[in-house]
Amino acid sequence: MSTSTLPFYQVDVFSSEPYKGNPVAVTIIEDESIAERLQDGDHMARFARWTNLSETTFILPPTKQDEPEVDYTLRIFTPGMELPFAGHPTLGSCRAWLEHGGKPKQAGVVVQKCGLGLIYIRISEDGQLLSFSTPPLRKSGPASLQEITPFLKAMDLPAEDVLEAEWIVNGPEWCALRLRDAKAVLNVNVSDPSAAGKGMWGILGSYKPGQHPDGATLEVRTFAPGDGILEDPVTGSFSAGLGEWFRNTKPAEAVKDDRLSFIVAQGTCLDRSGRLYIKQEDDGKIWVGGRTLVCIKGNVVLP
Amino acid sequence: MSTSTLPFYQVDVFSSEPYKGNPVAVTIIEDESIAERLQDGDHMARFARWTNLSETTFILPPTKQDEPEVDYTLRIFTPGMELPFAGHPTLGSCRAWLEHGGKPKQAGVVVQKCGLGLIYIRISEDGQLLSFSTPPLRKSGPASLQEITPFLKAMDLPAEDVLEAEWIVNGPEWCALRLRDAKAVLNVNVSDPSAAGKGMWGILGSYKPGQHPDGATLEVRTFAPGDGILEDPVTGSFSAGLGEWFRNTKPAEAVKDDRLSFIVAQGTCLDRSGRLYIKQEDDGKIWVGGRTLVCIKGNVVLP
Repeated sequence: MSTSTLPFYQVDVFSSEPYKGNPVAVTIIEDESIAERLQDGDHMARFARWTNLSETTFILPPTKQDEPEVDYTLRIFTPGMELPFAGHPTLGSCRAWLEHGGKPKQAGVVVQKCGLGLIYIRISEDGQLLSFSTPPLRKSGPASLQEITPFLKAMDLPAEDVLEAEWIVNGPEWCALRLRDAKAVLNVNVSDPSAAGKGMWGILGSYKPGQHPDGATLEVRTFAPGDGILEDPVTGSFSAGLGEWFRNTKPAEAVKDDRLSFIVAQGTCLDRSGRLYIKQEDDGKIWVGGRTLVCIKGNVVLP
Repeated sequence: MSTSTLPFYQVDVFSSEPYKGNPVAVTIIEDESIAERLQDGDHMARFARWTNLSETTFILPPTKQDEPEVDYTLRIFTPGMELPFAGHPTLGSCRAWLEHGGKPKQAGVVVQKCGLGLIYIRISEDGQLLSFSTPPLRKSGPASLQEITPFLKAMDLPAEDVLEAEWIVNGPEWCALRLRDAKAVLNVNVSDPSAAGKGMWGILGSYKPGQHPDGATLEVRTFAPGDGILEDPVTGSFSAGLGEWFRNTKPAEAVKDDRLSFIVAQGTCLDRSGRLYIKQEDDGKIWVGGRTLVCIKGNVVLP
């Protein structure tokens, strides 16, 4: 193996059991000259195509221009593009940084700078749960029938099967479609993914109270075939978007004891068991939490 | 990270430049009791879905029932199934085994046992090139218009664009379609992958002598959308199948100095530069060679 290597981690996110969540590949760049050499992103993008994961990240040292509270800068790539923000890569990269010996400047909170700005990641008292506060929506509001028609076509679903359609864009351009219930979500088959073009969408449907063994009240699936990800196993940014959407609408299955608080199940059709814990705290902020597990630890040849 | 970890390698195959070939994830199991515990393959299959690579392998120790010449047993998984044989995982796994300190019983030749039987892998004198001898075809002969129609539909190509169609099945169920030339191959767009169902196919087209800078005389692309791999970056088994097909037909672009000897370029449309060296030796056997590069080296939590 070449001597020009960097620390590498592959972390499973949003599951407490290995290989049941969503993996992210994380390379840690500590050397500022290497960070500078790779800054145009071409090599990072190529490496992300090579890993073939829904997301591949690079942790970079804070620069002099950064706010002093920043712990690290994160760049996030899919096989097809760079993203300003993404959920599972945020938690997985934070876990890799902690595993690598990173010490947050502020106890219990890691401050990540990404394309969207500063993201705050809380570490639970037992260290097991990492949560990020939902970034603001860059685009929200109902999606029109015309806008969702490509998604309906990809899934071969009639328009009347969609109860609500909403833009929840916080980086990735998610469109959220609510179906009748969780079962309807699990039954969807994306038979014609190319009909959706470059569009990214997710579907959600509720479980009745007590119906899901882990207490999930929503089943979610997300699709981005135009970006090389037919179905994403578990998606933090989508659930973060749901949190922002539900902030005002407060649907019954997302509220507990008068507060926005719900568990999302995702990945069931892909033999994953993603669990996302979404909760509004006293400060009004909504946090998306999940378990993380370092599954691969080693070194990578300089991308 | 859990203490139950195994050696892990991710190797780039068929390229001399990192991240320009086809990656394979390789886990090495040295402990016989772990090998026995995982033998039903369920955990291996789950890990292969999680890596999301076209192939993920497990190197296992030879068992008492194995022929004495066997150096290791290999199990090969795609995200969707287990394969009896595959080309780039064979070379990449062999490289990982050598990097891990494996010493072949017979100098210069590694003997791998896989679902298809024994595969012989030659190490070039400088140690750089690994080559496997092409396994016999389990199915060969012309493919009918009816058989190739799903592939034509997926690519939106008229039947008259295909000059020859041949089954070259040596594990993966490849169907090979020859197009007019290399340019025609590079221009193909798989606009309706679902039309191909579970089918796997490849297209080939020739370069004129001197046209390709690296001396390739064929451009190849392979597709297996039904198995979760829309387009495979570089495919050893397909070129091995071409070698067996050309053994008797000896097309001009595959012969040099009266011998079957040609270089295949693959992955161009995916920003890869796969190069496969196919050559018939004095013993009559056809060998498929390629460069390999260990890109990630570390440990993995027991799948």
